[in-house]
Amino acid sequence: MSQAQLPVTVIGATGYTGAELLRLLVGHPHVWVAEVVGQSKAGQPIADVLPSFRGVLAGEVASFDADRVASHSQAAFCALPHAASAPVVDALRARGVIVFDLSADFRLQDLAIYERWYGPHAAPGRHAEAVYGLVELHRDAVAKADLVALPGCYPTATILALTPLLKNRLIATEGIVVDAKSGVSGAGRTPTGTTHLPESAEGIRAYKIAGGHRHTPEIEQALGNVAGEDVVITFTPHLVPMTRGILSTSYAFAASASVSAEACAEAARSLYAGSPSVVVMEPGACPDTLWVRGSNRVFLSYTKDVRTGRIIAQAVVDNLVKGAAGQAVQAMNVRFDFAEDAGLPVVGTWP
Amino acid sequence: MSQAQLPVTVIGATGYTGAELLRLLVGHPHVWVAEVVGQSKAGQPIADVLPSFRGVLAGEVASFDADRVASHSQAAFCALPHAASAPVVDALRARGVIVFDLSADFRLQDLAIYERWYGPHAAPGRHAEAVYGLVELHRDAVAKADLVALPGCYPTATILALTPLLKNRLIATEGIVVDAKSGVSGAGRTPTGTTHLPESAEGIRAYKIAGGHRHTPEIEQALGNVAGEDVVITFTPHLVPMTRGILSTSYAFAASASVSAEACAEAARSLYAGSPSVVVMEPGACPDTLWVRGSNRVFLSYTKDVRTGRIIAQAVVDNLVKGAAGQAVQAMNVRFDFAEDAGLPVVGTWP
Amino acid sequence: MSQAQLPVTVIGATGYTGAELLRLLVGHPHVWVAEVVGQSKAGQPIADVLPSFRGVLAGEVASFDADRVASHSQAAFCALPHAASAPVVDALRARGVIVFDLSADFRLQDLAIYERWYGPHAAPGRHAEAVYGLVELHRDAVAKADLVALPGCYPTATILALTPLLKNRLIATEGIVVDAKSGVSGAGRTPTGTTHLPESAEGIRAYKIAGGHRHTPEIEQALGNVAGEDVVITFTPHLVPMTRGILSTSYAFAASASVSAEACAEAARSLYAGSPSVVVMEPGACPDTLWVRGSNRVFLSYTKDVRTGRIIAQAVVDNLVKGAAGQAVQAMNVRFDFAEDAGLPVVGTWP
Amino acid sequence: MSQAQLPVTVIGATGYTGAELLRLLVGHPHVWVAEVVGQSKAGQPIADVLPSFRGVLAGEVASFDADRVASHSQAAFCALPHAASAPVVDALRARGVIVFDLSADFRLQDLAIYERWYGPHAAPGRHAEAVYGLVELHRDAVAKADLVALPGCYPTATILALTPLLKNRLIATEGIVVDAKSGVSGAGRTPTGTTHLPESAEGIRAYKIAGGHRHTPEIEQALGNVAGEDVVITFTPHLVPMTRGILSTSYAFAASASVSAEACAEAARSLYAGSPSVVVMEPGACPDTLWVRGSNRVFLSYTKDVRTGRIIAQAVVDNLVKGAAGQAVQAMNVRFDFAEDAGLPVVGTWP
Repeated sequence: MSQAQLPVTVIGATGYTGAELLRLLVGHPHVWVAEVVGQSKAGQPIADVLPSFRGVLAGEVASFDADRVASHSQAAFCALPHAASAPVVDALRARGVIVFDLSADFRLQDLAIYERWYGPHAAPGRHAEAVYGLVELHRDAVAKADLVALPGCYPTATILALTPLLKNRLIATEGIVVDAKSGVSGAGRTPTGTTHLPESAEGIRAYKIAGGHRHTPEIEQALGNVAGEDVVITFTPHLVPMTRGILSTSYAFAASASVSAEACAEAARSLYAGSPSVVVMEPGACPDTLWVRGSNRVFLSYTKDVRTGRIIAQAVVDNLVKGAAGQAVQAMNVRFDFAEDAGLPVVGTWP
Repeated sequence: MSQAQLPVTVIGATGYTGAELLRLLVGHPHVWVAEVVGQSKAGQPIADVLPSFRGVLAGEVASFDADRVASHSQAAFCALPHAASAPVVDALRARGVIVFDLSADFRLQDLAIYERWYGPHAAPGRHAEAVYGLVELHRDAVAKADLVALPGCYPTATILALTPLLKNRLIATEGIVVDAKSGVSGAGRTPTGTTHLPESAEGIRAYKIAGGHRHTPEIEQALGNVAGEDVVITFTPHLVPMTRGILSTSYAFAASASVSAEACAEAARSLYAGSPSVVVMEPGACPDTLWVRGSNRVFLSYTKDVRTGRIIAQAVVDNLVKGAAGQAVQAMNVRFDFAEDAGLPVVGTWP
Repeated sequence: MSQAQLPVTVIGATGYTGAELLRLLVGHPHVWVAEVVGQSKAGQPIADVLPSFRGVLAGEVASFDADRVASHSQAAFCALPHAASAPVVDALRARGVIVFDLSADFRLQDLAIYERWYGPHAAPGRHAEAVYGLVELHRDAVAKADLVALPGCYPTATILALTPLLKNRLIATEGIVVDAKSGVSGAGRTPTGTTHLPESAEGIRAYKIAGGHRHTPEIEQALGNVAGEDVVITFTPHLVPMTRGILSTSYAFAASASVSAEACAEAARSLYAGSPSVVVMEPGACPDTLWVRGSNRVFLSYTKDVRTGRIIAQAVVDNLVKGAAGQAVQAMNVRFDFAEDAGLPVVGTWP
Repeated sequence: MSQAQLPVTVIGATGYTGAELLRLLVGHPHVWVAEVVGQSKAGQPIADVLPSFRGVLAGEVASFDADRVASHSQAAFCALPHAASAPVVDALRARGVIVFDLSADFRLQDLAIYERWYGPHAAPGRHAEAVYGLVELHRDAVAKADLVALPGCYPTATILALTPLLKNRLIATEGIVVDAKSGVSGAGRTPTGTTHLPESAEGIRAYKIAGGHRHTPEIEQALGNVAGEDVVITFTPHLVPMTRGILSTSYAFAASASVSAEACAEAARSLYAGSPSVVVMEPGACPDTLWVRGSNRVFLSYTKDVRTGRIIAQAVVDNLVKGAAGQAVQAMNVRFDFAEDAGLPVVGTWP
């Protein structure tokens, strides 16, 4: 850990996203981890709370102290639940720390929409400062941002898949269905009945359907921005009996009969030409979430159902990497002018 | 095994559907299993090929001999692959055996459509004789049929979910998307790369999308029949890392703004009033495939996405029971005037 | 539900063992379920708490009232945690109800040993009344018992495997190692960190080793009784990433060089000749827990490691069926003179 | 890929061990992959055969040509099955290529023992040249070796766990039982009935017990070498329903009553003091294979069962990393004087 490297703190480090941030940061060539903060586990040995870090991160989980973080860290990653995150972000920003926030608190541009879906905002004054951290689409803004709001896991996959199509007017903005499937780690580290192995290992179910999931407005915001008009989607998340991975399968009406899957793939290849995390597959391919397990990459694929005139857009990510921690590190890389893929796993653990 | 009971033979008994047929039939109060036929394993002890039957079914797997089957069995279940099934069915029917065929060979009314999706039919002369064995919708016909073509697993779940809506004109016939998820046992017993545990246990993927899956015309046939017009769907099957279970999530435009989820549920409750295998849940519920694991039941649920005017219809079945073997036994029960649910598991193995 | 059938109540019905008891009892030909008791969920619809029973068991979960249970039920199954069970059992026995207790409270003959492992006993006066409910070994006593203490899941598999060997002095009583592996449902329905899918689906671990697990004295009691001397074992339970199943692998020194695996198998076949739940495989076979999933059977197998003079005894059971609920129903069958396997699944759900 | 870096070829690259080698090597700071060889898939695009490498490794899988490999690579990794490996190794060594062989062909010092377990050796003249590549125990020899025989997965975990105990005479050499549990990737990439998800995802089973598994002599050789006398073990491997990970649970009699678990842990800490891949836990701890998933580390733990005088030694590794590919890269690092942990993941993907 050289002092010439960027000192960073991870807050909310004892959840899954926090653990994944630490995994990436301890292996990052230009960063060192100054502090590991986790309010509910403060005082416990890191190795007891995060068993894979035994022998790697000594010492104990720290409680949060904004002054102390600011005294030793140039940047901080906040992996806290929404509402809990905003005041922490505010305190750090007030002390000049550059913040990468993985909560939902700064993702929605319109505060009224935020409050409709999440309740009162705890730091509304800080809201305008935030840049949406989907690097592939907002690289220049992220490079200058001091507060980056990282996208949710479902939005990452879905927005990356659909943006090239909307940008090039290849699909209709009405009638989009997003049927998404997530591994159970997306539900976080707190055990519940629906994540208890005997009730989740041999079953699949949808949840929070028909506008019930809070990622809905986030996806609609991004799609609306690129379309230049309101986009309302039907979004159906599912819980799948596996630990990691999101497959987002989107259905949209082709803008015209002449739109081909190849045109969709070409639009994506063109948009993501300089993006090391994006792989655009050949038309008709069906990517598997296993192919990106542990990796910061997203695989995109476009297919046309010529029988119905629909475009099917598939995207796979590891919800904890490109869908969360990896994406945050990617944003940090861009912000601090490191190589965009520095410290980020390209090839995951397959199988 | 009393001779007063119905003697039946299971052909193709060493695959998963065959094994499940045997599980149900050996516990059935009115049936005895006269012969266990499996061409590729003929001569091997049943207990070696089907380990859960050790101590239950003595003797060896038999090769197929139509005369012998006809000599001892009144009915036969054919759990063979398509194309392989038709000649066997034909030989048995020629000898007066009542046949429950679980292959695709007799499911499609229009031979031309069959041949487009499956290739030449091996027993076209027998085709007109077949009754589609979805008991809930064709009970009277099944009761008189001598050749019952049991539905595929995806069609069972999807047709049961959508029929009440189309019958009552609650949804539009255009623009239906069926996003279905299946456990790996649906792929059969032959090991392949995509069913090998290390490449399937921690990933989800779609396959044969955009009109590539042979259950597409079967679903369209049933929906078209009830709608009274052609119905073309976008059908996307997925392979999910679990052994059993299908969740079919269908999206359709409500026929008008006034159509409610409750109206959809009521239509289903009404249509399936006398059907012991169907459970209609309250609007908005999200059934889990685990809830029907090992059971012959289907759970249906209807939700309206009021933001987009879409009806979301969910159905869960155990692909090997209500999606295959259980449904075949149910058809047999109806055909031979047993109680419709005789020998059929109602409550599955949860968890 | 005919009044000529035996009316029974299930107490602690909302856990996994309780649910499995209900699955077996609602399908039992000679029993009807008079009441479903679950203290912590009292007042909730059964269908909400036990989703696979929707449409099967109407009404709500009841709170416990000994008088009411005694007023309508001849027998009761107690599926409560240890310590919580004893007073309930006592209250029911005081009212003449025949009790099948699935807790540990009445399994250990020596109260002092019970109290060393579990703490003070809540109904010591009732203790002497209990019969250990491993039907294969105590059939006659169970047939006359009014309080049956059902064995634990690990003990069931292990005792059935080792008893024939000790009874016939085929193995040494010293140096026995029991390395046992259980699916996660054995940990019960309460979600915890170690049963949370993301932390349990892709890992295996031991727990409570070196005499830390409370099934140790239960196994030692049974082995000691048959050996006629104290038996002290090394018992290592493991948590395996699956829902159901126990594989108990025991290692013992052959009593002499002339002891063969076949002699061990023969001893087991002889001891279990009239036991419908026991399958003794050929020497060297390796049974899979999947073969008994959902079934009340146990598969035993004996192998000799001639290089080291050790006998390896393997047993597989479904921890929720033969290891708990099925075994309790089996004991009830014997107690009420029904066929021993009435209502019990022989062939499980394979695959 | 700088020419100043070490050029290496991976042979047998399309299996799981080969894929894992490529994952580690493409991220290695001092290495570049000159060629990807896979006889059975030769001519196919790498991205089709190894989907996680799409966009990372362009071009096609090559067939094997010893001259060509020698012309561009200083070192080669052979991840071929036993018997197939020896002639390839021989051809490469004859051309001066330094070889890291992951097969069993050069692991056993005594050719007669090799031939008893594996059949005739295909390159016996090369046999004496090989060094056993368990770096922690043979670091100096590996540093000078031109042919390194990497240990098997079970032996890696077991030998690392037991060597400190035997070296310090803390356990008896007689009566050792090794009960080991492996994820399914250990069975390789070829699909079979026992690795087919429906028959492996919800079951655990032992296999090749009682001296039937070929890792037995390899473990015995290593233990015998350190003990200075023959060691004969009872080795029981199990297949566990997960993709990666090995837990080896060993049972040995303490050499005397005074031997404590802490003494065992201290012996391990002392022996592995300079070994970055080894973590010795506190006595009584139960490591989980998930803690090392994707990592090159091994977690060791020692417990004393004071009731029976037994020492229980537990070791967890990722069978594809420390148990195969990672260990091979570690040996290469030592051989070429790179940092021992260069390019090796320390923290795995948890959860």
